[in-house]
Amino acid sequence: MKLSQLGERRLIEAVRRRFLRDDPAVLIGIGDDAAVLRRSFARSARRDLLVATDALVEGVDFDLRYGSFHQVGFKALAANLSDIAAMGGAPRFFLVTLGLPGSLDLADLMDLYEGMTDLARVFGVRLIGGDLSAVRRRNLFISIAVLGEVGPGRAVPRSGARAGDWIFVTGTLGDSAAGLELAKALGRKTRRGGGLRDLDPWLSLFHRHFYPTPRLKEGRFFSERKIANSMIDLSDGLASDLRHLCEESGVGAELEAAALPLSPVLQAYARKAGGSPLRYALRGGEDFELLLTASPRQGGRLLKLVRKNKLRLSRIGRVLPRSRGIFMRDEAGRRRALPERGYEHFR
Amino acid sequence: MKLSQLGERRLIEAVRRRFLRDDPAVLIGIGDDAAVLRRSFARSARRDLLVATDALVEGVDFDLRYGSFHQVGFKALAANLSDIAAMGGAPRFFLVTLGLPGSLDLADLMDLYEGMTDLARVFGVRLIGGDLSAVRRRNLFISIAVLGEVGPGRAVPRSGARAGDWIFVTGTLGDSAAGLELAKALGRKTRRGGGLRDLDPWLSLFHRHFYPTPRLKEGRFFSERKIANSMIDLSDGLASDLRHLCEESGVGAELEAAALPLSPVLQAYARKAGGSPLRYALRGGEDFELLLTASPRQGGRLLKLVRKNKLRLSRIGRVLPRSRGIFMRDEAGRRRALPERGYEHFR
Repeated sequence: MKLSQLGERRLIEAVRRRFLRDDPAVLIGIGDDAAVLRRSFARSARRDLLVATDALVEGVDFDLRYGSFHQVGFKALAANLSDIAAMGGAPRFFLVTLGLPGSLDLADLMDLYEGMTDLARVFGVRLIGGDLSAVRRRNLFISIAVLGEVGPGRAVPRSGARAGDWIFVTGTLGDSAAGLELAKALGRKTRRGGGLRDLDPWLSLFHRHFYPTPRLKEGRFFSERKIANSMIDLSDGLASDLRHLCEESGVGAELEAAALPLSPVLQAYARKAGGSPLRYALRGGEDFELLLTASPRQGGRLLKLVRKNKLRLSRIGRVLPRSRGIFMRDEAGRRRALPERGYEHFR
Repeated sequence: MKLSQLGERRLIEAVRRRFLRDDPAVLIGIGDDAAVLRRSFARSARRDLLVATDALVEGVDFDLRYGSFHQVGFKALAANLSDIAAMGGAPRFFLVTLGLPGSLDLADLMDLYEGMTDLARVFGVRLIGGDLSAVRRRNLFISIAVLGEVGPGRAVPRSGARAGDWIFVTGTLGDSAAGLELAKALGRKTRRGGGLRDLDPWLSLFHRHFYPTPRLKEGRFFSERKIANSMIDLSDGLASDLRHLCEESGVGAELEAAALPLSPVLQAYARKAGGSPLRYALRGGEDFELLLTASPRQGGRLLKLVRKNKLRLSRIGRVLPRSRGIFMRDEAGRRRALPERGYEHFR
């Protein structure tokens, strides 16, 4: 059934019936003018409150020719949870504002919500409200607002990097960009499942692009132990997001090319595609890994903790005074310029 | 300068420089992955938290041929603050997610923010963050999330109306719909100021449509004194929003046509346009007045308080058991059907 046959009211009712869950912290949820949260919803009354918002737009941030509604919903929430992770916090609630064409099928809309709630369940985050608006065809958008919490004064800003800090990154880099490249090449086939055999060796890249994992466990680990001086999540690509962090902190930075964590699958894919895996790692967006800096003392402590706690973390460079600039050392120790920017809206 | 010449990063910097204000409750504001609020931001630590979100879409909710960027920004925030008013709460912070075409002028974008912050200043609400996305031309959208607070357990839901309650409404009805009709008729002229002379007698209608006042003072008045059993803001039109409230509460309702508050200007305009002012009052959207119900005892108390506090409030009907339906009595006491729906997305 098309949304235009249902109307806004019955649509909200359908969402509420399927996705509303009881929660003692939620006094009023979906369907009223605003959601009402009991002030004591935080695990401790003294914790600070985090609020982030992030939108995905059809034709810009996603393309339904090679992504399903479920994937788009999952990823939209993942991008928002990643922002909470980058502060070192725990997400608790989210609201979803959707711009939808009247020609959309109700089943597709439900898939979109399923994608979000499938991820939400993993991290114990609850849908508490939102808004539905009509848009023209092919202009669907998803705007999410997330509420979270963090220990008092423990939120990790982008602006805290100090010259001398070590630079770390979680997970591996560039997989998502390679996954997108693959998906584009396979085009519509993947959506119908027809291209899956061609994808087989590269499934993990594909997965990293369409179903990214926000690094919430890692982010909290760094904030609760007061390890990180600064942190940002990698949404625009390492080169670009490192620049953001350095600009906010008023510092420079040096990356070591040899230290960048590259998955074996990405390396194999880059060989096959005839490109450099470093290019994916530096320019590729939407890895949703965490980039952080820590003093050498905390950094040393971190490396020990990481081994014990089985976190995937790599030391990839160091923070310099601003006057030294932002650059990379290649494997021969030569200074290399970083690509100017990763993904950039409005260009 | 066009946004496409600036890029996202310098855009955010421009917004931050112009609109960021220090606030002791805001630990981290615009420009990081998430905003961080000191837990003690509420006037009392025990107050409940309100979160609402509402989006406006170009070509659906607004048309830049007869509205300026400043007006659209103002109204987008007004619609969100109105949701907080409808819970009986006080708004504190907001985040803005914008979908913008690269061809947009920076000056227009700044006007949009000015519209929001002009209203925000009046009610002491602070911009703390957001997100910028690229969209295709003529598909601009504004999605706002507002955080507010309300006394513990004092939020007024849509679902609390009881048979026997009196029905009240603030202000006057239908002015906004008449203002929109006027603006459409005058077309582009109003934007350039050229049509202002024709508008002169109707300026208040025009103002009600483009610069609506969220009824925050009134909403808090009703919640803090525990007067209202149920409340909703009028965004889709009285007939439609009364239905929403009745559906949520599982009740019926009877309106008295003669009691609906109509401004003298609307009455004069309706005479001139050859229509019934009641039609504007019942079907017209975006009045952003509050519709509430209260027991006869609280209602009687309310009418006395209203006189003393100079609030504009009208008693317009009563709540009935659900089996009696939702209808209106005309001036001769005859039962009249209410229009089915006001504004409806996706149709």
